[in-house]
Amino acid sequence: MDFKNWYNIKAKKIDQHLSLYLPESDNRQKNIYESMRYSLNAGGKRIRPILMMAVFEIFKPNEEDIIMPLACAVEMIHTYSLIHDDLPAMDDDDYRRGKLTNHKVFGEAMAILAGDALLNKALETVLQNQDLMSLSPEIILSCLKMLMRSAGTEGMIGGQVVDMFVAERSMEYLEYMHRLKTGALIRAACQIGAVAGGASEEEILKISQYSDYLGLAFQIKDDILDVTAEESDLGKPIGSDEKNDKLTYVTLLGLKESESLLEQYTEQAIESIKHLGDKSQRLVEMAEYLLERKK
Amino acid sequence: MDFKNWYNIKAKKIDQHLSLYLPESDNRQKNIYESMRYSLNAGGKRIRPILMMAVFEIFKPNEEDIIMPLACAVEMIHTYSLIHDDLPAMDDDDYRRGKLTNHKVFGEAMAILAGDALLNKALETVLQNQDLMSLSPEIILSCLKMLMRSAGTEGMIGGQVVDMFVAERSMEYLEYMHRLKTGALIRAACQIGAVAGGASEEEILKISQYSDYLGLAFQIKDDILDVTAEESDLGKPIGSDEKNDKLTYVTLLGLKESESLLEQYTEQAIESIKHLGDKSQRLVEMAEYLLERKK
Repeated sequence: MDFKNWYNIKAKKIDQHLSLYLPESDNRQKNIYESMRYSLNAGGKRIRPILMMAVFEIFKPNEEDIIMPLACAVEMIHTYSLIHDDLPAMDDDDYRRGKLTNHKVFGEAMAILAGDALLNKALETVLQNQDLMSLSPEIILSCLKMLMRSAGTEGMIGGQVVDMFVAERSMEYLEYMHRLKTGALIRAACQIGAVAGGASEEEILKISQYSDYLGLAFQIKDDILDVTAEESDLGKPIGSDEKNDKLTYVTLLGLKESESLLEQYTEQAIESIKHLGDKSQRLVEMAEYLLERKK
Repeated sequence: MDFKNWYNIKAKKIDQHLSLYLPESDNRQKNIYESMRYSLNAGGKRIRPILMMAVFEIFKPNEEDIIMPLACAVEMIHTYSLIHDDLPAMDDDDYRRGKLTNHKVFGEAMAILAGDALLNKALETVLQNQDLMSLSPEIILSCLKMLMRSAGTEGMIGGQVVDMFVAERSMEYLEYMHRLKTGALIRAACQIGAVAGGASEEEILKISQYSDYLGLAFQIKDDILDVTAEESDLGKPIGSDEKNDKLTYVTLLGLKESESLLEQYTEQAIESIKHLGDKSQRLVEMAEYLLERKK
């Protein structure tokens, strides 16, 4: 199967499971569910859960149902972080992926609550579907531990803090910021795929290396797209990083050096999993896809 | 030991463990930790973790170290909900317990992130201290499941949603709201104490009954205090519920009927655990303390 088909099938599977875990309802909580679903279905590329699935199927082909709750959990956590990052008190963004941001549609109070609820629901989804996962309780706890660490002050939230309150404009600070803000959750997605798939310590290490390079490459690409993309592709104004005096690879290094760093990290990501041979195919394709994406 | 001493010893134990799980640091995340600790240490009564400990020691006396991570997790979740509820987009409160609210001290962006981080840290605290807890992985997962359900859209967050967007001013709606907003987390605290303590199904049921009545009584008392307390005791303006047109027991039923309902629910809470005999002492005292508190 070619990569595009493979990717679309995975993305569809995630969409289906997200709908399953957040069903439409007509009870007193229907408004918050509507707000949560709005952002979950606002055109996200599903990169993190697809990475988890891609890693998992290296070790356990054709058993991906086992990790769907964990794959959806990582997407819910990513989505909650976007809702909160877009709030007026944070980045104050009106558009994301061409759609109005959550608080522009549902108001600030509901956006705060919907974000909270998605983080909470990520955990509930895993905890309420243990039976379907056919993973040992120890493995589930271990996966949750990786997930929550990557999402907290030593991960995603910590990254957002240092992005909001930039203390210095150095390369070291920038990489620290992005390892936390974007990298940690991508790393956790890949590690969970490996651990749930029963990978060896050695294999988990290599996959982690892959995910670290991929996470940095992903962020550099994001920073480059903020300058070079078509506004219609990106779904938000171009050049907003520079306008908002954001610390990014492009504002720090310039476009050319950023592009060369992007290629270098992508190569290093691919290099890290070369030893897997044919089994690495989807991960190599993921790295290439993230390198070449237009949005 | 008299109740007051017993209570203070428990509260101190919680304070100590919270400091342990959120140590002062001098790294790049020190600002968010400062913000998290500010609200954790802003004079909370520690009711939820103490209830958990009180229930737990009925079944496993002198082993409370086992549940300290879970006890602190419930306090972190309670605290994050207060930080977010106080935000300008939500209840817009400047003071709580006589201190400036989190966003008044640290700004809105940090308050949102500190709230997110406390919810996340609650989970991390349990997941990173499994070894100390000497509970089976199955029991830990079961406790986390109760905790997250009680904190989500079918619990605390759902309660805040219906409080923010009141759809009808009826007794049935009011009780639905408070069973979710306040009741669910109090119930989870008690249930976790029972399950972690190895209580039987029958015992868990009785404890749950106790906690449901206690949760309602607790909320009625809160609503009464908003009218009758000394401002210096309460640490925030008196009469704010009526001013903000809030749906409360007092605004719906009046003061006299609310007081009689408070006594009735307190009695029913105590009745639910009567069969435990002497072992119920602390839970009875907790119910009486919550009935008589002045703040």
